[in-house]
Amino acid sequence: MKGFAGRTTVGAAVAWIDSALPNFRDLAVEEISLFHSAGRILACDVASNVNVPGFARSMMDGFAIRAEETHGATAYNALPFHVTGTSFPGTPFSGIVMPGQAVRIMTGAPMPDGADSVIPVEYTESQDQTVLVMGELSVGKHVGAIGEDVRSGSLVLGAGRSLRPQDIGVLSSIGCSSVQVIRRPIVRILITGNELLSAGTRPRGFQIADANGPMLHALVSRDGGLSVMPGIVPDDRESLIAALAEPADIVLVSGGSSVGLEDHAPRVLADHGTLAIHGIAMRPSGPAGMGVFNKHLVFLLPGNPVSCLCAYDFFAGRAIRALGGRNQDWPYRRIQATLTRKLISTVGRVDYARVKLDGIHVEPVAISGASVLTSTTQADGFVIIPADSEGYAAQTEVEVLMY
Amino acid sequence: MKGFAGRTTVGAAVAWIDSALPNFRDLAVEEISLFHSAGRILACDVASNVNVPGFARSMMDGFAIRAEETHGATAYNALPFHVTGTSFPGTPFSGIVMPGQAVRIMTGAPMPDGADSVIPVEYTESQDQTVLVMGELSVGKHVGAIGEDVRSGSLVLGAGRSLRPQDIGVLSSIGCSSVQVIRRPIVRILITGNELLSAGTRPRGFQIADANGPMLHALVSRDGGLSVMPGIVPDDRESLIAALAEPADIVLVSGGSSVGLEDHAPRVLADHGTLAIHGIAMRPSGPAGMGVFNKHLVFLLPGNPVSCLCAYDFFAGRAIRALGGRNQDWPYRRIQATLTRKLISTVGRVDYARVKLDGIHVEPVAISGASVLTSTTQADGFVIIPADSEGYAAQTEVEVLMY
Repeated sequence: MKGFAGRTTVGAAVAWIDSALPNFRDLAVEEISLFHSAGRILACDVASNVNVPGFARSMMDGFAIRAEETHGATAYNALPFHVTGTSFPGTPFSGIVMPGQAVRIMTGAPMPDGADSVIPVEYTESQDQTVLVMGELSVGKHVGAIGEDVRSGSLVLGAGRSLRPQDIGVLSSIGCSSVQVIRRPIVRILITGNELLSAGTRPRGFQIADANGPMLHALVSRDGGLSVMPGIVPDDRESLIAALAEPADIVLVSGGSSVGLEDHAPRVLADHGTLAIHGIAMRPSGPAGMGVFNKHLVFLLPGNPVSCLCAYDFFAGRAIRALGGRNQDWPYRRIQATLTRKLISTVGRVDYARVKLDGIHVEPVAISGASVLTSTTQADGFVIIPADSEGYAAQTEVEVLMY
Repeated sequence: MKGFAGRTTVGAAVAWIDSALPNFRDLAVEEISLFHSAGRILACDVASNVNVPGFARSMMDGFAIRAEETHGATAYNALPFHVTGTSFPGTPFSGIVMPGQAVRIMTGAPMPDGADSVIPVEYTESQDQTVLVMGELSVGKHVGAIGEDVRSGSLVLGAGRSLRPQDIGVLSSIGCSSVQVIRRPIVRILITGNELLSAGTRPRGFQIADANGPMLHALVSRDGGLSVMPGIVPDDRESLIAALAEPADIVLVSGGSSVGLEDHAPRVLADHGTLAIHGIAMRPSGPAGMGVFNKHLVFLLPGNPVSCLCAYDFFAGRAIRALGGRNQDWPYRRIQATLTRKLISTVGRVDYARVKLDGIHVEPVAISGASVLTSTTQADGFVIIPADSEGYAAQTEVEVLMY
């Protein structure tokens, strides 16, 4: 039982993750229903093999006519046209619009042959089979051309796109009922600690209820991963080795990450895989580590819940997002705010300071130990203080990452 | 077939929604598993009836001793203590620490009786059953007190909270395995239009594939609603009345919202419910409307997909979020950017201008008809131009809502 001999910088740990990650394009692709694709990452470019619309259509409710015949039409010089039929969406007028004729037309309805423009109903008056046109038109006015929305052969959406609601609408309109997306990374969450009761169990005696399991599950879901939780893993080498060997893209081990007598995870990783980094110059999460086991990345997250959250967000979340083809950057909104009290840090380590926001002002939360998870529920966000800083004086403007 | 006689302002339409909405606290509450509660809205305050931790515990790996006995200890004056046992997390040392004694202790392990502080392992040297202490301690140093994280009886999270991952961790730690949350509003999506093929069908002839259904489904999910989609509803009064009568908290009708011959929805609503608003001074989405049918809110969304998206976002989404206890504000990140080209609008109507972002510069997308849904997939966001504005000159700084 000894302290860490030396600690890796946060930057070096992030660099190691980026170098160890396979490119997400190597991840398997899955085909899913378009209806369930919101927020998923497109695996390949999508081009259209149809025009949308596939026919010229009216953009307005009105009358389809020949533009050249509207010359000189005004409210004081209404020109009469003979109405020979109606074009409805999906049920077009089947004849041809001849000189002096008009066809009543609805928004979205196909343009009848012979007509080249639409006079909106607001600029007309109808009397029996006659419509009076009170405005001039140019050719193509209020007509949506073939392929106006999507042209056949064009690229509609590119690989790597996180699908928005309107993207799904466009994909539907070109006839896609399913899409090829990046498979969600499978993240195995191993919770260790002999003092732990299952999540949500009322704590008793010298035992505490697992907070990290359900928290990590929510974080992994947020980052596009699919979590697998086999329950609390007994604190011994054999159980840990067996649990690490199960299939996964990434494994998170919560607890037992430090250098204490019962901290098996780092030694197991060193003996049976690669312990690339152990001990990071940051607070909280100093005892975090990472490595490789059976070709999957393993993150050792300290059991203290704030440390666990912080180490997840600095390292594991980044890896999960990258592996799923997502933006690796912090998934938190950034705002600028002014400190009302000084924020102290220590040169040589990165600090993760939880803060409360009040308008444009921000102050550190009072209680901030690594074991006080409520410091992160009372906080509105956090400030990252870089390793080369002693902290910030009151009145400094800082960047806050909002939870 | 006539145009709109007059149009309601966007502000008046929003005010009508807010007045028509029941308070979300009237919405039914449901109890769900803590594991599925991320992003759900807490229905009632949660107080703890346990302390977390329920016992004093060590914050470090080290040795539990009596602080008063460390007086004068330094690296050059290491003081010896007799190690009488070990306290592990969940397996405490059962004896009492007497003067001159120390108990080896792990992070998170219960403090043994008699000891009042912990010397971290880094400030010690061990020789057999003796530990040399090389630093002074104050009482309570490196000890987490009972209730340090959560005090029994304290309010942990308030009603109305959107649950974050760390909230779920805290709820788990106080023994909650389930939570009472606001029930998700049930949103019935009625797609009308005789020209429509089911979503994702390859368009053919004078038919187009429904884009709005899957898009609205994704939007409703984003806003915390549960959508119900009965398929494309035939364009006749009876089918629409029957579909409107089905149970729902909110009904969205896509298509047939205007004043054309086949626009049944406004008349059905006027005849069998309340058509509160029809025709709004905005572009796109001018033909949108809203009202009440069988005590549920109904939103009439134009069939043109950009209009549909825009009317959903201005009105229906706001109502769904409010009904589910969520923030009513736009669910889009806002940024400031400088226009590279002028953005033209018309006084008297609100404009929804799709824009592309390039660093801190923003420009309108070239093609922007209400039927061109790809204008919203090529855009990065939109600018809202208020009714009293003629638009903005190039070089103006504008607020962009990012898709």
